[in-house]
Amino acid sequence: MRQIGLNSNEIMKEIRDIRKADIQWPFVFNSICSEPLHIGVEAFIKGLDTNLGDNRIFKGTAKVESKVIELLKEVFHGPDMVGNIVSGGTEANFLALQVAKKMRPEVEKPEILFTETTHYSVLKAIEFMGLKYKIVETDENFSMDISDLIHKIGKDTIAIVVNAGSSELGCIDPIEQIAEIARENKIYLHVDAATGGFIIPFAKKLGYSLPEFDFSIDGVSSITVDPHKYGLAPIPAGGILFKNKDIQNYLTFNSYFYGTQAHTTLSGTRGGASVLAVYAILEYLGMEGFIQITKKNYESTEYLIERLEQLGYTLVCTPQLNIVTFYVDNAHNLMNQLETKGFIVSVSRRFKNALRIVINNHLNIDLIDKFVEMLITIDVKETSQ
Amino acid sequence: MRQIGLNSNEIMKEIRDIRKADIQWPFVFNSICSEPLHIGVEAFIKGLDTNLGDNRIFKGTAKVESKVIELLKEVFHGPDMVGNIVSGGTEANFLALQVAKKMRPEVEKPEILFTETTHYSVLKAIEFMGLKYKIVETDENFSMDISDLIHKIGKDTIAIVVNAGSSELGCIDPIEQIAEIARENKIYLHVDAATGGFIIPFAKKLGYSLPEFDFSIDGVSSITVDPHKYGLAPIPAGGILFKNKDIQNYLTFNSYFYGTQAHTTLSGTRGGASVLAVYAILEYLGMEGFIQITKKNYESTEYLIERLEQLGYTLVCTPQLNIVTFYVDNAHNLMNQLETKGFIVSVSRRFKNALRIVINNHLNIDLIDKFVEMLITIDVKETSQ
Repeated sequence: MRQIGLNSNEIMKEIRDIRKADIQWPFVFNSICSEPLHIGVEAFIKGLDTNLGDNRIFKGTAKVESKVIELLKEVFHGPDMVGNIVSGGTEANFLALQVAKKMRPEVEKPEILFTETTHYSVLKAIEFMGLKYKIVETDENFSMDISDLIHKIGKDTIAIVVNAGSSELGCIDPIEQIAEIARENKIYLHVDAATGGFIIPFAKKLGYSLPEFDFSIDGVSSITVDPHKYGLAPIPAGGILFKNKDIQNYLTFNSYFYGTQAHTTLSGTRGGASVLAVYAILEYLGMEGFIQITKKNYESTEYLIERLEQLGYTLVCTPQLNIVTFYVDNAHNLMNQLETKGFIVSVSRRFKNALRIVINNHLNIDLIDKFVEMLITIDVKETSQ
Repeated sequence: MRQIGLNSNEIMKEIRDIRKADIQWPFVFNSICSEPLHIGVEAFIKGLDTNLGDNRIFKGTAKVESKVIELLKEVFHGPDMVGNIVSGGTEANFLALQVAKKMRPEVEKPEILFTETTHYSVLKAIEFMGLKYKIVETDENFSMDISDLIHKIGKDTIAIVVNAGSSELGCIDPIEQIAEIARENKIYLHVDAATGGFIIPFAKKLGYSLPEFDFSIDGVSSITVDPHKYGLAPIPAGGILFKNKDIQNYLTFNSYFYGTQAHTTLSGTRGGASVLAVYAILEYLGMEGFIQITKKNYESTEYLIERLEQLGYTLVCTPQLNIVTFYVDNAHNLMNQLETKGFIVSVSRRFKNALRIVINNHLNIDLIDKFVEMLITIDVKETSQ
């Protein structure tokens, strides 16, 4: 560290230069996070000195979190729903699995079931928490195979984690059927809707035929929904929702100070800025605003698919959300070539021969056209070599 | 959620009203977090759309994290140090204990040792991770008792967590002696310096006689230091530092996308704003800036102690950092009375008959005078009832 500090102008100039090396949003074709909505940024900035870890200081801001949960009750059909805005989907998944574990203290080697399309944060949680797991097979749509699920359930199975949808492909597991099985076997059911939580409710209103995924299903105990993904909030803003307070109560950690609220999150100190941002976005967009954004994202997705299919590309699966994966030759190399031209796409380790494109609010049909033109230029060149 | 959203002016007006209910910083006498430094806020805002979970998009911002670690190497005497800016001290402590656990896979029921002054995030980590623990006794200074530590070490002891210092009292454990014991017994030693990490290095330069606590001690494997506490960064900005890459490697989680870096944090998606803020603050203050702030905090602390002792109050312990705890009658009631007058102080569940005051950069001698006047008014009234 330097002995005498720099002046703020020099530092802010360097920060601006640093940011110039970041890829601009119109070229980002792989991200479930998007450019945050302006109202969210504005509200976030107003709360940059707040700490929800101390509700005695931040008496005003602390109340906003329950307002957010209140607003989301209708969206996720949870009349008794409780929850928190947390650091991200990983923390949310940790919290859900911790509840599942604590509910079944008699199980010595607790086991979690999920498919290989499940987000790696679930594996992270399992590794941290010393849990066991089994991978349930997927069907032709990369969704959980019900017969294999039934086959894999054992006496140590304490939880099933399902996707709504997977962040690799956007596939949604058949949650209603799974919930029935979970109920019969008294197994905790957690829905990881980090990707689809702020898509599915609005897509259904637009008439898209998507499976149920939320507390409307008897048997769903918790849902991960990430406002900082399709909720268009600045990072960090993950979300964990529990069906009711009784379930969340397994998480309660007392502070060692009087008057400071008990925690139901992993973090003790946590910024109120995130909560203000999420609140502002929900109030600003309303149901109609989210529906319009979702409509645009689906239209962009459909347009991209149309163009790709016209060009002869084959999809890995028919997308349920706004993720398009299609087969290419030499995907890894193509991804790198696109990156040198400024476009960021992904290649999953599991689908090595496919490009993965994520459509979010920062993209539109014009930008998709530009991307497709670049793809053709590079891919044709590659293929003809 | 409302069907049609509100306009942004209405929302921002509500946010401002919400913030009016929060206690203003000059009245906050209990918080290890302070009002963030302006340069930190400014830099944070510039990165509100960034995600360190994707270094392919945020090529510029992603590099700043290693710059931060580089700057901190000198401060914490870790020439080979590696680390991350994380969501907070809790995540940092989780990561350290996960490394300790993974280093000793042969231990079936791993056990952690620490004192009762240790932050509750360590207990949280233990509960999530299904670890065992034993509480080591403290000496008359509320620091870890060496002979009891030796007594409590067993074949299952995989880690010792020490404080630098405790967030209740600011007490620093005798880390040099503990490190020797840890080395002899091949036990992982983690230093929780969430509170003292951005105080002790500068206080030592001012001539305060404080114990060593960092990588200068052979045997320290990791340190939690929280920029969002005495580092004056906006929340979230915790920090986890490992002595070297070999130790951190136990944490490596691969993303399932090619080209996306492996994670060494709990969160996958995590904002780059925090890292920009920490970088800006380190560059802005430099060693000298931190020393001046630390000097002011110690002077304020000493002034508060002087006034309290003149008034006949007795300290629970001689503070090593900037936390002052003193005995009062009916502490819980006094805390509530002060709160009705707008002043926030804490009472710990373990020291029920004492008030705890935390001095940080947002306080000064004038504000301490105002607080003490209010304390006298209320406490005399209380006592004479």
